[in-house]
Parts: sequence; structure tokens; C-alpha cells
Amino acid sequence: MREVYFITSNPGKYREVKRIGEEKGIEIHWIEMEYYEPQGESLEYIAEKSAEIIKERLKKPFIIEDSGLFIEKLKGFPGVYSSYVFKTLGNEGILKLMKGVENRNAVFRSVVAYCDKDRIRLFSGEVRGVIAHEQRGRGGFGYDPIFEVNGRTLAEMGKDKDRVSHRRKAMEKFLKWYMNRSESG
Amino acid sequence: MREVYFITSNPGKYREVKRIGEEKGIEIHWIEMEYYEPQGESLEYIAEKSAEIIKERLKKPFIIEDSGLFIEKLKGFPGVYSSYVFKTLGNEGILKLMKGVENRNAVFRSVVAYCDKDRIRLFSGEVRGVIAHEQRGRGGFGYDPIFEVNGRTLAEMGKDKDRVSHRRKAMEKFLKWYMNRSESG
Repeated sequence: MREVYFITSNPGKYREVKRIGEEKGIEIHWIEMEYYEPQGESLEYIAEKSAEIIKERLKKPFIIEDSGLFIEKLKGFPGVYSSYVFKTLGNEGILKLMKGVENRNAVFRSVVAYCDKDRIRLFSGEVRGVIAHEQRGRGGFGYDPIFEVNGRTLAEMGKDKDRVSHRRKAMEKFLKWYMNRSESG
Repeated sequence: MREVYFITSNPGKYREVKRIGEEKGIEIHWIEMEYYEPQGESLEYIAEKSAEIIKERLKKPFIIEDSGLFIEKLKGFPGVYSSYVFKTLGNEGILKLMKGVENRNAVFRSVVAYCDKDRIRLFSGEVRGVIAHEQRGRGGFGYDPIFEVNGRTLAEMGKDKDRVSHRRKAMEKFLKWYMNRSESG
């Protein structure tokens, strides 16, 4: 069975990625490693620079994933700092910022970076939705209870979340490329 | 005249630091340089790691400064990401988050890192205050119009801001050390 090493400190993220890999017959192993994530304006920039930093220390191919919630009316906030903002303001803080705001458009974006000794390659996925007016649902994690797609929040979707997930889209692009490559190489 | 190189992309910060240096007879020169600022939980961590990164490229002694506004009731938000939050949410966003919040305690913190070929040394300063209920004053920059000390916002203080400034306190600690060191060395 083919294997991929995934570096993250987030168990929820690992479980989702592992599940997507399994469907395609790829086993995803978890490596917990602390590394200096650079500040930056885009997920792509952060993922690429992080991969360069990890590459110095980990001498085997790996993937990392970075994602964020970008709210149109808040100029992309919380964006690249979504996890910090979740830990401090949480979903209640986002709802407070969005109080009385009519344009509730938002996008969840995910970037997967694959890195081996020759290269770094980026794969991205996104899901468009709106910020709900209150938290709903018990599934998922992070901003899932306030992010709504076709009338349901990601936290209300249960397994259906997998179908629309930004992380799934990025992972599927990566896995497709990775499998083609393994077969041809 | 003794000289120090200061690396920043913020002209307002440069002007304040230059003024403080002049009072002590130290000329502060501005170097504009892009560098990867790491993400991190504390100003100290970010300043130290940034200095290590710059040190690889700049072969002369320099200082950098990192500062942030830490609001008690928001678990330290916007903290280390104050400049990103200022660009996205701005002062209006902070006021919205603080609407109806009674505990308005906040602290402005500054960390100056000095780096030469032998070492990195950190100097910190802080000013305690409260988040105002509305923006007031036309001076200063950034969060100055919403940060209140003894009834006046930093933006209302004009030159008096220099007396209480967190950045000044950190800079004065640095300059004192630097001058003693120059004299004894």
C-alpha cells in the first residue's frame, strides 16, 4: 500500500485527511512536529515556506495542509490566521463582527503542499458559503458551526461534509497527481 | 555619532524610534527589508526568530521591533497579529468586538531585538490602559485612537504620547544597554 506522511498538530484535520486517503487506497501517517510557520498574506505562501523549513529536517516525502476562512466583508479576515482567531475570538467573536452585516459571503480555502527531495507542489480547494446568523450543528470542528452551504452549516452535515469540503478538494487533486505519478514512475 | 540600523516596513514606527534615539545622541538609520516573520504565540518568540532570519542576510548589527495590543477579555487578541487585524478589521472591528464588554483592560507591548554577530538581546516595554468606547484623537497611528491611558487616548496625547509609549520604554532600555556597552567596549 502506498503511504504518505502528513505533518499537522490538529487531530481533526488528520482524521479527515486520513479518511480521504483511505478511499483512494493511500495510507496517511501522522507525524507530529513543531515547526516555524511563517507569517504571510496567502495560504500558498505559508504552505510553501513551511514546506521549505520542514524539508531541512525531515528526509522523506511529506504533505502539510493549511486552510482558512476568508470573509468577504471583513477583507478576508480571519484568513491565514484562522486558527489563532478561533482560539481567541472563537465563533462567537466572528458572529459579533458580522452582526448587522448583510453581505455574509465567505470562502473556506485549503492548500496542500507536497514536498519531496526534488520539489514542492501545491494543490488548492475551496468551498463557497455564507456566515450563518448563529451556531448550528454538532459535527466537524473549528468554524464548521457558522459556515453555511445551501442552507446547512458544515457542522450540520455529518458525513455529507466530506462531499463539499475544501480540504477534500485539495486532497483529491493531490492524490490524483500522486497516484498518476507513482504509476508512471 | 553612534549609529543603529533599524529594519521595519512601517514609517510611523521608524519616526517614533528615530526621535527617541536622537534624544540620546544615537542616529537611527532605516533599512527597508522584506523578511519572513514567523508565526508565534509571543512577541519575544517572533522578534528572536525574525532576528535570526535577518542575521543570515544582513552582515551588520541591527534592531527590529515588534509590538501588539493585547486585550484581556479577548484572550490577548489581536496580540501578535495586531497589524494584520488592523488592516482587516481596523479600530471599528475592535470596538464592535468590545461592545457591551465591561472589562476593557488592555496592554500595548513592545519588544526590541538587537542583533550583532555574537548575540540577540531582547528589551521589552509596556503601557497599560483600557479600550475606549469610541475612536478619539487625530495623532499617532494604528490603534492609538482607541487605546486610553488616564482618560486620554494615545491619539489625543500629541507629544505626550512619547512619555507613556511602550515602544519608548523598550527603546530606552535598549539604548541604555547599548550606550553602556559602547562606552565600556
